[in-house]
Amino acid sequence: MNHTVYNFGAGPAMLPHAVLEQVQAELLDWHGRGISVMEMSHRGADYMRIVAEAEQDLRDLLQIPGNYKVLFLQGGATLQFAMVPMNLLRGHTRASYVQTGVWSEKAIAEAGRFATVEVAASNTDRQARVVPRQSEWRVSADTAYVHITGNETIGGLEFDFVPELGGIPLVSDASSHILSKPMDVSRFGLIYAGAQKNIGPAGLTLVIVREDLVGHAPAGTATMLDYAVHAQEGSMHNTPPTFAIYVAGLVFKWLNGLGGLDKIAEINARKAACLYAGIDDSGGFYTNAIEHRNRSRMNVPFTLHDAALDKAFLSAADTQGFLQLKGHRLLGGMRASIYNAMPEAGVRALVEFMRDFARRWG
Amino acid sequence: MNHTVYNFGAGPAMLPHAVLEQVQAELLDWHGRGISVMEMSHRGADYMRIVAEAEQDLRDLLQIPGNYKVLFLQGGATLQFAMVPMNLLRGHTRASYVQTGVWSEKAIAEAGRFATVEVAASNTDRQARVVPRQSEWRVSADTAYVHITGNETIGGLEFDFVPELGGIPLVSDASSHILSKPMDVSRFGLIYAGAQKNIGPAGLTLVIVREDLVGHAPAGTATMLDYAVHAQEGSMHNTPPTFAIYVAGLVFKWLNGLGGLDKIAEINARKAACLYAGIDDSGGFYTNAIEHRNRSRMNVPFTLHDAALDKAFLSAADTQGFLQLKGHRLLGGMRASIYNAMPEAGVRALVEFMRDFARRWG
Repeated sequence: MNHTVYNFGAGPAMLPHAVLEQVQAELLDWHGRGISVMEMSHRGADYMRIVAEAEQDLRDLLQIPGNYKVLFLQGGATLQFAMVPMNLLRGHTRASYVQTGVWSEKAIAEAGRFATVEVAASNTDRQARVVPRQSEWRVSADTAYVHITGNETIGGLEFDFVPELGGIPLVSDASSHILSKPMDVSRFGLIYAGAQKNIGPAGLTLVIVREDLVGHAPAGTATMLDYAVHAQEGSMHNTPPTFAIYVAGLVFKWLNGLGGLDKIAEINARKAACLYAGIDDSGGFYTNAIEHRNRSRMNVPFTLHDAALDKAFLSAADTQGFLQLKGHRLLGGMRASIYNAMPEAGVRALVEFMRDFARRWG
Repeated sequence: MNHTVYNFGAGPAMLPHAVLEQVQAELLDWHGRGISVMEMSHRGADYMRIVAEAEQDLRDLLQIPGNYKVLFLQGGATLQFAMVPMNLLRGHTRASYVQTGVWSEKAIAEAGRFATVEVAASNTDRQARVVPRQSEWRVSADTAYVHITGNETIGGLEFDFVPELGGIPLVSDASSHILSKPMDVSRFGLIYAGAQKNIGPAGLTLVIVREDLVGHAPAGTATMLDYAVHAQEGSMHNTPPTFAIYVAGLVFKWLNGLGGLDKIAEINARKAACLYAGIDDSGGFYTNAIEHRNRSRMNVPFTLHDAALDKAFLSAADTQGFLQLKGHRLLGGMRASIYNAMPEAGVRALVEFMRDFARRWG
C-alpha cells in the first residue's frame, strides 16, 4: 500500500496493514497446507483451530465472562435488528429503545414488527446532538430489554456511560465502536456488531450474549434466526463465513499484540482529540456540533462553513490520498471515520491538510 | 500452490488457481487505488462496478432472462430453506418437496415451520440411490411450488431432468451443481445456491428469482428475509459480503474466459466419467451404488470393499496430496468432490492413486 493513502471510509473500512499483508502472504498456501483458507472445510481440524483461536483471542481482548456465548453470524447488524426482538422477548410484549440517530431508528422500526416498542428516550428535540442522560429515560418495569446504539456511525454520537438497569437486560449495537476501548461485557445482556468497521471484512456479524438469554425464540422461528441453534453448534449450524472469521481472528491477534484494548483506547483518544482540535481551532471554518461528552471517537462528521467549498475540499483530499471523506448522504458535509486501523499519522496528516485547505480558502 | 496438492473437499471447496492468484496480487492495492477491495465502501463507484460486472457476467453465463432478479445474499442455503416458504406461499398453505437425500430432508424440515409440506416423491424406499422419475410424483394442484435439490452433495445424486410442472413454480437448491453446465433458468421459478462450491468463498448466497414471485412475503416478515427488499435495493439494503462477491465475480470471469458453461460441462463430464470408470473398473475394490443416470458429476461418494482399509486409504491419499477425501460423517466411506475448479489432471491423478492403492491392498 502507498502510505500516502489514508482511507476514512465508515465501513467497510480500513483494515490493519499488517493483517492485510499476512492475508496476502498466506492466501494461496496457509501454513504449508497447499490450499487457501477459503478452500478449507469448516469442519476440518485446521479451520476449527482458526475459529477457536479467534474466539479465545476475542474473549481475552474483551475479558468476556464464561457465561457469555460468542457467535459468528451473518446478515449484519440489520439482521440483528430482527433477531434481537425475535429471541429476547421471553414472554414480554414490550421492548425499550433509546433513540439517538439513524441507526437506532432503523433498529426501532424493525423491532416494531415483533414487539411493542417503547422509546425510552430520544434526542430528536436536540437535533440528535446528545445522548440523553439516563435520568431522562422512562423504562417500563415489564419491558423485555433496553436497546441502545453505543455509537451512531452517521451522526457521530457515542455513549459516554453504560446505563444501569437493575435486572433488565441491556442490548447494544456496538458495530462502530466495539474493540475501540475496554467494555465491561458483564453489564450487557447482548452486544452485536457488524464486522466491517473494527473487526474484519463485511459479511460477518459478531454476537456476544449472556447464556440465560439464549433459548427463548418462539416455536416456528426460522432455525437460522434462533441464537440457541448457533450457540449449541458453535456457530457451525451451517457453513459460516470462513474467510471473514479468519481475517477477524488476525485482527484480534493484531490488537492483542499491540497491547490490547487499554492501549488502543489511548491511541484512539489521541486520534480523536487531534481531529476535534483541528475542527474546533479552525475559527469556524469547520464545525462539529455534537455535545462534547458524546462526540464519537470513531466517526467524526464535520461541515465546512460554506457548503459551496465541499466539492473542492473532497477533490483536493482525494488527490492527496485522503479517501472517502464525503459525509453520509443523509447528513451531507464530511465525515472522517478513524477506527482502530487508522494510524495516528493518518489523522495528523488529515488535520494538516484541513488546516492548509482552510488557509487557502478561508 | 504446490500442484501436487488436489483438494477434493465438498465445500468450502477448491477455487480456480488463477482466481486466487489475482486475489492475492491485488489484495493490498486494487487497480492502483491504494486500498484493498475489503476496504471499499459498498456504495462507492469502484465497488458498485464490481457488483454490476459480477451480475452481468453471471447473467451471460446462465443466460438469465430479463424478468429474473439476481440477488447476492447471506446465510447460505440453510437460510433459503426458510426464506423460500416465507416468500413463495402467495396465499397457499401447501408446498411440495421431492425427497432425494440429506439436503432435501433439511429443506423439508425447515419448510414445515411455515407451510404444510407435501412430499411429492421420495427415494427412501430405494436407499436414496435414484431420483424418482416425474411420472411417480404426486403434486397437488393447489401447491405453492415444487422444491427439488438439484444435486445432493452428500448422497452424490443429481437430477438428470428438469421437471415440467405447468404453471407451478419450480424451486431448486442448486448449491452444489450451479454453473457446472448450462441451465435453462426460464424453467425455474427460483434457484438458490450457497457460494462455497462452484461460485466463491463461503458467506455468499446466490438467489435467481422470477420477478412475479417477488413481493409476496407476509406483513411482519423480517426485512432481511424479504426478497422484495433485496430486489428493490440491488442487494444493497445493508452492507453485502463485499469481498465474497468480488471473488465470485472473478470466478464468473474465469468461466467466461474458459468458454462458458458449455465448455465447463464438457470438462466436467470427462472428469466424472474418468472417476466413475476408475471405481467401476476396480473389480469391486471401490463401489458407488447410485443409479447411473443420477450419478452426480460433482460429488462422487465411494466405499472400499473393506472399511478396515479406510484409514490407510485416507492416510496414503493425504501424504500424496489428495486432500479431504473422507466421506460425510452421515455416510462414512469416501467422497471426491470434483467441482469446476478441480482440473482434469487432478481427477486423473486421483484415479491413478486409487488404482495403485487397490493393487497394493487388493
